[in-house]
Order: sequence, then structure tokens, then C-alpha cells
Amino acid sequence: MKLPSKVTIVEAGPRDGLQNEARQVPSEDKVRLIEALAEAGLARIEATSFVHPKWIPQLADADQVLALLRRKPGVSYSALVPNLKGLERAVAAKVDEAVLFLSASEGHSKANINKTIAEAVESYRPVAAEAKRAGLRVRGAISTAFGCPFDGDVDPAVVARLAGDLHAMGCDEVAVCDTVGYANPRQVEEVVRRVAAGVPLERIALHFHDTRGTALANIVAGLQAGVTIFDGAVGGLGGCPYAGGATGNVATEDMVNMLEEMGVATGVNLDALIECATLATGLVGRTPQGHVARAGRVRHTPKQ
Amino acid sequence: MKLPSKVTIVEAGPRDGLQNEARQVPSEDKVRLIEALAEAGLARIEATSFVHPKWIPQLADADQVLALLRRKPGVSYSALVPNLKGLERAVAAKVDEAVLFLSASEGHSKANINKTIAEAVESYRPVAAEAKRAGLRVRGAISTAFGCPFDGDVDPAVVARLAGDLHAMGCDEVAVCDTVGYANPRQVEEVVRRVAAGVPLERIALHFHDTRGTALANIVAGLQAGVTIFDGAVGGLGGCPYAGGATGNVATEDMVNMLEEMGVATGVNLDALIECATLATGLVGRTPQGHVARAGRVRHTPKQ
Repeated sequence: MKLPSKVTIVEAGPRDGLQNEARQVPSEDKVRLIEALAEAGLARIEATSFVHPKWIPQLADADQVLALLRRKPGVSYSALVPNLKGLERAVAAKVDEAVLFLSASEGHSKANINKTIAEAVESYRPVAAEAKRAGLRVRGAISTAFGCPFDGDVDPAVVARLAGDLHAMGCDEVAVCDTVGYANPRQVEEVVRRVAAGVPLERIALHFHDTRGTALANIVAGLQAGVTIFDGAVGGLGGCPYAGGATGNVATEDMVNMLEEMGVATGVNLDALIECATLATGLVGRTPQGHVARAGRVRHTPKQ
Repeated sequence: MKLPSKVTIVEAGPRDGLQNEARQVPSEDKVRLIEALAEAGLARIEATSFVHPKWIPQLADADQVLALLRRKPGVSYSALVPNLKGLERAVAAKVDEAVLFLSASEGHSKANINKTIAEAVESYRPVAAEAKRAGLRVRGAISTAFGCPFDGDVDPAVVARLAGDLHAMGCDEVAVCDTVGYANPRQVEEVVRRVAAGVPLERIALHFHDTRGTALANIVAGLQAGVTIFDGAVGGLGGCPYAGGATGNVATEDMVNMLEEMGVATGVNLDALIECATLATGLVGRTPQGHVARAGRVRHTPKQ
């Protein structure tokens, strides 16, 4: 099996996780979680969102969280940025990376950001340009890239075109997202192949939800297709508020466990990450949703 | 992605599932479940076990279950057979297939059947010979083939040797089992390659638990390595009584969903199978443990 020797994990729990949880988490607790994740070895953390608090009240304290945060050197902290106003706040809060997000299906685009796909693309051009001018790294994220709860199937050609658009407008990275857990490994291979025709492989990230149990299989398919950047959410937090049954991002600890077991280095301390999973899900009044935090890691024979 | 056009699913829920559940299920309910599984399209069902009731009281009614069962033509019903006495009962109960099971690790072998691995192999030679003479299909199953909760790592060479032993003593099929959910896709590829050196690929089956979320990834690795027979347990029933944290076989419906989504035919009606998952877990007082029975299947665009 041809696999890379190491990968980059993007921890999305503090943003994609907490934004979909019913319980409002105090800013100090969010900061504690983000700091613990950095200590566990996560070098890229999606910390919060500058979407208007009317839409995501759970993350209304984005400025406050970033102000309180003790930043670990070498760690990149990102935030969702919906428009120029959000970018202004993100720059003031000194985020390292702005995440621009659109959908690959009209139904989800309308529900999520009340724009057509074409309108979303146009709206992000000045945001990407301004973010680059401000010295931020920019990530473009494509939701419902593997299927939409409203529209059903999504054409990989649409995903590839949007990825090319995001790349062309200056995005350093394009995240291809399975917002509702519809993806399967064969599809992952195809979508990555199509996207990679317009975006260099090392700038493609994959974001899976484990709604139907396929997330780790999809990650392996992504690895085999040459992708080396993968999102997770500690404790399997989150989901998508507009997508019924979309219960949870892939648990970062499940992904790290599998990758490390396969000899693919993640830079993450699994034991510390499992503690983060307990912390994270405790903040929203639950227990870890993934597998490894409940079952424990694989037991190997002690080295002689 | 090179995948077969179809695979064979072996439903292990009535045996590997129910034997590890605390609640005793009435024989009539077991029969109802097995019949519903056959109706859903499962063509091979591990129905029960002839292990002494002292060890597995949950399946003490094996003879009764098989006597009550209305058999569907074309469906193969199997049972665990630990010795010649068990085989005698299995033959009298008219099972189609006898399953002989041993461990790839001494620690698990001792805990599970109180024999060394070598003693287990020797004990099965007459059972396999007698089963073949009685006209039964014979499956050999190797537990802890990917790691042991007592001994840690398991040498793939040991698994390959045991698979060869089982094949040589007349087993029509060898099931390589990840009893405690330790396997990862890279390891699956290696173990299958080693086993396939001594056993034809079409006679190798894989049996995964989803304890650490890797089951579907492991199944894809198995498919890519050429295996076409996979075990599951409806509703994610079961586990292993001697292995802490070994919570549940891969849910058959999760596997069927992924395979069908990838264009790999299973012969199983997913909607009917999801109903079986609710039935099966209801019998033991739980809700489905897998993903698809909770989240629902993938929504596709209706065909025009």
C-alpha cells in the first residue's frame, strides 16, 4: 500500500464541532480546549468563525476567544471568514488563516449562505485578495462536495471547477468536504483525481464526516490518491445544522490512531488527544462520539 | 480503484452477535431474526453455535433454533462446531456449514478454548474430516489474526501458517478475524498477501470489528487485495467476551451501504437490512450500534 510517511491534520473541533452543538460553551473553556489541542501536537486548528452571530450564536465570541488564547509557536490558528466585514474582524484578531466556504450544490448553498454558488464565488474574490494582502494564509472549503442532503448527487466536475476557482482567486489550499457523510472511497478517488487536474495535490485537503461509518475508509482512499491534509474534530464533535442525520465529523483521535498504526506520522500525541476528546465533549455535556476514545488504543507487545 | 463487481456477505449476528449479549433471547425470536435476514438477501448466515452451553449459555438452544427455522432455498446456515460432539449435534440439526475456530495468539487461545494453538489445530483435524464426510461445507476461522488483547502483536507468518493448516485439513474457506478491532488497512493488505500464498484468494474471508472505527477501511483494503467474502453482524451486535473494549462487529448495514455506494453488488436489500438491525438490537434491548441504521442511507438524486 503506497502511503505517505507523514500527513497534516487540521483540527476543526473548536469551529465545525462547537458551532453545531446546542450548548453554548464559555469562551474560557473554548480557549482551554484550543490550547490543549495545540499541546497535543495539532499544528493547525480551526479555532472559530467570523460568521455573523445571528447565524452562529455558538461562536459569537470569536474575537474574545482569539484575544484570550495563548498561542503556541508554530501552530496556525484559522477562522471562518464569510465576507470583508468578517475578514476585518479576523485580521484584527490576528488569525493566521482565513477559511472561505461555499457549497457545491445550490440547495445547500441557499440554505447555508443564502447565495447561489456563482454568487458565492464572486463574493469571495475580494475577500481572498484582501486576506492575502493582509498576510493571511487562505483556505477555500467546498461543502457538499460528495453529495447534498437537499439536491442529492453532486457532479465531480462542479467540484473540480469550484476548486479551480478558489485556487485561481488565491487560496493556498482547497478543502473538499463531505458535509453529510455521503462519500465512499471510490468516489473520493474520482473527486480527488478531478480536483487535482486543476489544483496541486499538496494543496488539496479532505474533510469527512463519519455519519455512515465511511470516514476512515475515505481517508485511506484520499491518502492513496495522494492527499496529505485531513480534517478531523476531536471527540467526533459537530455535524451540520442544515443536514439531517449529519452527526459528527470524523473523530480526530480515530484518524490519528489509524494513521499512526499504519506508520503514517501525524505529529499528534494520541494519549493527549484522547484526553482532549473527553475535555471537548464534556464541554458540551456529552461523552466522546468516536471509537478510540471509548475503546482505548491498540495494545502492542512491549518492546524488549 | 480496482474493485470486484460483487462480494459475498456472511451475516454473523445471530451467532457472534447474540453470544456476547447479556440478554438471553428466546429461540423463537432468534428464528424470526434469521428468517428476516434471509429475506433481506443474506445468502450465508452464521445461525448459532454448538459450543457447550456451559461456555455460551446464550446459544444453548442451537438445536431448537435450527429445528424451528424455516429455511430459505439457496441460503447456507452455519454453526460453530468446537469438537466431534458438537459436530454430531450440528449434523443432526442439518447445518450447511461447520465453522471451526482457533486463535492466532496463545493468550487468546487459552482464554477462549483452553488449548494451545497447536492443540487446537490437532483437535480440529478429525472434526474437519468428519464434517466433510457428512457433506458439510467447512470454514476455519482464525481469531486475533491482527492482534491480541492479551499478547499484543500477532505475527502474520503465524496467521499464514494457521490458514494453511486449516486449508490443508479440508476447510473450504478460511476466515481471518480481527476479534478486537486492532487491524489497520496496511496490515490487512500484508496479512491477506501472506495468507494468499497458501490459500486461494477466493477461499479467504475477512471478519472485522469496528471497535476503533477502522472496519470499513479494512474491508476496502481487503477488497483491493482481492478478497470477496466479508463478515458483518446486523446492527453492529456483539463483541468478544474475553476482550475488553471489543464492542461490536462491523454493522452489516454499514458495510452493505458502502459497498453498494461503490458499485459493488452484495445481493442484500439495504432497507430490509436496516429493519433487521432494529429488530436484532431490539431483541437485546438496545438500539442499532452501527452508523447507517441511525443516520439513514445516502440520498441520491431521483432518476429522471
